[in-house]
Amino acid sequence: MALINEHYLKLKAGYLFPEIGRRVKEFTQANPDKKVIRMGIGDVTQPLAPEVIKAFHQGVEEMAKADTFKGYGPEQGYDFLREAIAINDYKARGVDISPDDIFVSDGSKCDTGNIQEIFGHENKIAICDPVYPVYADTTVMSGKTGVYMDNGYFENIIYMPCTEDNGFIASIPRQRPDLIFLCFPNNPTGTVASKDVLKQWVAYAIANKCIILYDAAYEAYITDPAIPHSIYEIEGAKKVAIEFRSFSKTAGFTGTRCAFTVIPAELVAYDSKGQPHPVKPLWMRRHTTKFNGVSYPVQKAAAAIYTEQGKKEVKEVINYYLENARIMIKSLTELGYKVFGGVNAPYVWVKTKNGMKSWDYFDKLLIDANVVGTPGSGFGPSGEGYFRFSAFADRANVVEAMERIKNLKF
Amino acid sequence: MALINEHYLKLKAGYLFPEIGRRVKEFTQANPDKKVIRMGIGDVTQPLAPEVIKAFHQGVEEMAKADTFKGYGPEQGYDFLREAIAINDYKARGVDISPDDIFVSDGSKCDTGNIQEIFGHENKIAICDPVYPVYADTTVMSGKTGVYMDNGYFENIIYMPCTEDNGFIASIPRQRPDLIFLCFPNNPTGTVASKDVLKQWVAYAIANKCIILYDAAYEAYITDPAIPHSIYEIEGAKKVAIEFRSFSKTAGFTGTRCAFTVIPAELVAYDSKGQPHPVKPLWMRRHTTKFNGVSYPVQKAAAAIYTEQGKKEVKEVINYYLENARIMIKSLTELGYKVFGGVNAPYVWVKTKNGMKSWDYFDKLLIDANVVGTPGSGFGPSGEGYFRFSAFADRANVVEAMERIKNLKF
Repeated sequence: MALINEHYLKLKAGYLFPEIGRRVKEFTQANPDKKVIRMGIGDVTQPLAPEVIKAFHQGVEEMAKADTFKGYGPEQGYDFLREAIAINDYKARGVDISPDDIFVSDGSKCDTGNIQEIFGHENKIAICDPVYPVYADTTVMSGKTGVYMDNGYFENIIYMPCTEDNGFIASIPRQRPDLIFLCFPNNPTGTVASKDVLKQWVAYAIANKCIILYDAAYEAYITDPAIPHSIYEIEGAKKVAIEFRSFSKTAGFTGTRCAFTVIPAELVAYDSKGQPHPVKPLWMRRHTTKFNGVSYPVQKAAAAIYTEQGKKEVKEVINYYLENARIMIKSLTELGYKVFGGVNAPYVWVKTKNGMKSWDYFDKLLIDANVVGTPGSGFGPSGEGYFRFSAFADRANVVEAMERIKNLKF
Repeated sequence: MALINEHYLKLKAGYLFPEIGRRVKEFTQANPDKKVIRMGIGDVTQPLAPEVIKAFHQGVEEMAKADTFKGYGPEQGYDFLREAIAINDYKARGVDISPDDIFVSDGSKCDTGNIQEIFGHENKIAICDPVYPVYADTTVMSGKTGVYMDNGYFENIIYMPCTEDNGFIASIPRQRPDLIFLCFPNNPTGTVASKDVLKQWVAYAIANKCIILYDAAYEAYITDPAIPHSIYEIEGAKKVAIEFRSFSKTAGFTGTRCAFTVIPAELVAYDSKGQPHPVKPLWMRRHTTKFNGVSYPVQKAAAAIYTEQGKKEVKEVINYYLENARIMIKSLTELGYKVFGGVNAPYVWVKTKNGMKSWDYFDKLLIDANVVGTPGSGFGPSGEGYFRFSAFADRANVVEAMERIKNLKF
């Protein structure tokens, strides 16, 4: 008798973004004349950069001719892309990462989910609250948790509340975790971690033989030169941290699909007898057995962001989104909202008016202003009473959305 | 302390294709003047069809303009592609599959590996011997097996030997499995399953509440009109079978990456209390939580194979490869080899000369003829003494390889 993975039954019914989609659809069907402005899902809106498009076309053209056609590529990614990453994302910031430690993939969502497969079920996972829902959901799917509890937490996950009191920066938890998910610049709060904060985490991980799963998908939005873009800017981090990066938000690749993960050769985890094992060969085995590499033209397109012209074009789009964030921060602050994030991140994190619950504020904004955002509570119980606005919108929509919010009556 | 998934330590050191790569590299480095002909890895060589290239470029061009730009797409795949699949791959053969039951992905290797996640660890897996190594390796990774044994089998996998005696068609195993991997047209033996054979399997699965994981990646190579292309051509199969299909071998997408999996809404598996649960929502949850859809331009390219012109062009390439197979069968048969497959499949399965072991034959062929094939034993113990030739080569290379094999001295 074929048996299901019963851990899936523990998952909450609605993943955050489908639930938003459902409510928006219901509203638009009932109100077809209303122009809804979407700042909910963190999805980009600006087209791919011309330099990226050029390389993408070239990649396609190579697939059209027998002498340049590419069949199966290296599962880990083509050398040209991994070398460009090592030079531009790491060496340029004084960090020595070998191209051999870089694994190109089709998305950070996939990587941050799949990474759990190479670790045992006995590991205790620590995650921030609020946070990107995928870390918790994939932990549940992998069988490392108990049931979903009334307090909005899963049993056996170590939650690290991130609140106004701690500046939305998690403190070291009292209970000792084995794997620690960190995300900076943070989704959803837009917070960044200073060197000192990351140093503490790295020191803790080294002392306790933990591994940090560091999601740096939004690093391109860091404007403060003192803030690290990579956890490997911290001494010793290569022994204890896996870093996830994505082209989705850096270069508008949400529909094009390309990302990468770094697993330094010196990173180890342990077997049940306490013997250390390098983690990289385990991921290499997973990557070569359950994945077949990223589409060749997509890798060509991704590599184009590292050319001089590509860098310039990509930076312009990032600045466009950051200017959106500045407009939102200014407007919302003027309206008396308490506003966080948005300076080194594409997300603006706002305390709702009059202590409204996140979903109530979502409904009010949708119905009265026809603006879609993301309820903070969807990212975890500590997000209750907050709301996330994404800066990945058209400028005109951002300005219009702020105007509509200004006219809201409470 | 971060703990590894110790099941990974049970895996055999070398995955088949990297080991072939290693030996070929060693040989070519020592003999840079020799022209090696590669018929080892089942990788295509002919460029993408013009119609596919045209659509691929159009897809890229849409990404260049704000009003046609695509961000996150539906994780399950765009409607235009799923509808084209439902009509052309199923309805055209009298099979009613809803586009809603089709999940577009970046590869069948990923899907046949990842599918195990939605099933419990207690399931017994049956696989053919010899077979594509990914089924066994991902079963090991998922923790469903014991150790690797001296006989070349993993403990707790039910192996179904496919030999000359049973025409390389697995018989129903004595021990009852829960999940059954079947692959037709078969990799590596090139065997196909008749309607009667599939009817037996479907009846068995229904009677025993098993699920058949049906890998039909090579269905486009079926030339005999009596042979089913889909397991759903068998009455009742939608209750017990998941089907995997790929554009890799159908349309040369090994480096472009697109595939799909069908999970009919009526397919169920059971919880530990014996209660049935539909499987499709579990896969939907996995697909939406750990995957973010296939690159939009790639989906556009894939859909182009279903246009009238696309169908014609793709068929031409398939016929080209099948003609390669015919040339191989003819030559090898004339040389006194016992030859199987290659008529409804792109693989020619050959008994080695003089009872040579598969890897010995591999080395002899590499060193004396500078031809690379795949040792049958790499697909499982029952493949020992056999050898797989891939028809995915250039015509001139096929002819030259056959000439060189003719001149081999034993």
